[in-house]
Amino acid sequence: MSVVDLSKQVALGIDIGGTNTKFGLVNHRGEILIKGSLPTDQYSTPEAFVDALHEQIQPMIDEHCEGKKIEGIGVGAPNANYYRGTIELAPNLPWKGVINFADLMTAKFKSPCKMTNDANAAALGEMMYGAARGMKDFIMITLGTGVGSGIVSGGHLIYGHDGFAGELGHTIVKPGGRKHWSTGSEGSLEAYASATGIAITAKKMRAEFPDSMLNQYPEEAINSKTVHECALKEDPVAVEVFRYTGQKLGEALANFVMFSSPEAILLFGGVIKAGDFILKPAKLHMERNLLPIFRSKVRLVFSELDEADAAILGASALVWEK
Amino acid sequence: MSVVDLSKQVALGIDIGGTNTKFGLVNHRGEILIKGSLPTDQYSTPEAFVDALHEQIQPMIDEHCEGKKIEGIGVGAPNANYYRGTIELAPNLPWKGVINFADLMTAKFKSPCKMTNDANAAALGEMMYGAARGMKDFIMITLGTGVGSGIVSGGHLIYGHDGFAGELGHTIVKPGGRKHWSTGSEGSLEAYASATGIAITAKKMRAEFPDSMLNQYPEEAINSKTVHECALKEDPVAVEVFRYTGQKLGEALANFVMFSSPEAILLFGGVIKAGDFILKPAKLHMERNLLPIFRSKVRLVFSELDEADAAILGASALVWEK
Repeated sequence: MSVVDLSKQVALGIDIGGTNTKFGLVNHRGEILIKGSLPTDQYSTPEAFVDALHEQIQPMIDEHCEGKKIEGIGVGAPNANYYRGTIELAPNLPWKGVINFADLMTAKFKSPCKMTNDANAAALGEMMYGAARGMKDFIMITLGTGVGSGIVSGGHLIYGHDGFAGELGHTIVKPGGRKHWSTGSEGSLEAYASATGIAITAKKMRAEFPDSMLNQYPEEAINSKTVHECALKEDPVAVEVFRYTGQKLGEALANFVMFSSPEAILLFGGVIKAGDFILKPAKLHMERNLLPIFRSKVRLVFSELDEADAAILGASALVWEK
Repeated sequence: MSVVDLSKQVALGIDIGGTNTKFGLVNHRGEILIKGSLPTDQYSTPEAFVDALHEQIQPMIDEHCEGKKIEGIGVGAPNANYYRGTIELAPNLPWKGVINFADLMTAKFKSPCKMTNDANAAALGEMMYGAARGMKDFIMITLGTGVGSGIVSGGHLIYGHDGFAGELGHTIVKPGGRKHWSTGSEGSLEAYASATGIAITAKKMRAEFPDSMLNQYPEEAINSKTVHECALKEDPVAVEVFRYTGQKLGEALANFVMFSSPEAILLFGGVIKAGDFILKPAKLHMERNLLPIFRSKVRLVFSELDEADAAILGASALVWEK
């Protein structure tokens, strides 16, 4: 029996986004040996995209991996299905329909390929290398352009019957509330707590308060970053934008806690740069909506992973996952 | 190595309710060999209660079990903790504080004892013997005096970090909505979809509509049974009571589906006697609140187990669970 040197095992982690795709070779310790990127939206077919990936990555594998072989490939992508290895009807990718992406990758790279959606991959990465190390029950919420989620229960990601579990951004927090720009649903968490939702809230509120600092910006410059700038300068309207957002987030989190009773909820993504402006009201409204047996038990924490690397690490973690 | 005859293995299943406790000796096939009950509320200490249980059950074990031994004890009880084997701060039981119930049982019966809350036990029973046979991902919702839930993901009950996961009756479906008579929370599913909630809705609605048949009953006779009688006689207000209840239930179910993506949702308990009056609006509002990728996939079904036996079977299933 040969002894395996874990530090020599290398996985390929790939994070496919609507505009850019990032990839890296990652060892068992979560060290990214080398990384790169290419533009997703310049390849009209998934086959052309996989060819381009291979052309760019294979030389890196040849250089960095002993015996010229990787242990496996992990891919995080929107609407990726864990069971089927497919990308299905992803609205923000250039390729339509159901794509057997894992098969394409395996055929090209001669290596097994596992896939899941980007938020699930982020949760795995956090469990292996980040703030969730040692945790068996936690929920990861990604607050970016959209709101994604990955739910870990008993040490395993919840994939559900069809592999699409964990769409917490689309749960309804305010029935009959704000109409979602893309899904058409009314009052979803994403409609309020995503960067897009925050910009909508900010535009509404600044119209009500002509004195707000937020009115010094042109319409297209209103986003969670500029709202944060105004909040730091103590503009009460900007502060209220985040307070309201935090309230909606906290109300949603309370429901999630009563579902799976996690040890912690990890927040990740651009929106969390607002820090306590969002975190404090989120915590308050989560606690007040919890049954007493759940109160003061669940930690609300920010991700520890560098945002640029987290997606690659998370995708590579799929390879090491049992 | 001896061959184990599974049909000869017997578990003791106990369902502790606020008023009554039911128990039975159950074999591996889910056949209840013998059953009985005793009044929970007549024992002022858990020790006296366990003594009384033992006195009544041990003769049954001696008669029905080979070698005078049972494989184990499974207990379903309100606020029971799976990890700790405790009953904690149960508002409707006569014993206060945190009770090491499993230890008391094991000391008395000389047999291992596992516990979980009643709705989790019902979900296990349904998975082993009922409508969820062969399913790995489903959610059980019990609609009785209160609303309970058991969530199965990847073939396992979700217990969460502290053993209290699955309190879906207390998730908020209407922020700022109806105040719960016991928890004080506003707009929880239980406030609308429990038998208690239905009676409240019916009393409100009949006051608005003096012509409703519901006004022919005295205040104390308004419950889901009498509302059902009026709905069967086509009283539009009674029908609306169930439609409204079904809507709130369906909105909540949509959120649950986007959490764990189950194959089916099983409904159980007295309230489901209203049948299609509740099921049809629940289905409609669940579907309309789902993301397209979840639509027309999740079956909404009624429990197949006899209500009186389900709790005992479910508790005994804890013993066979891996």
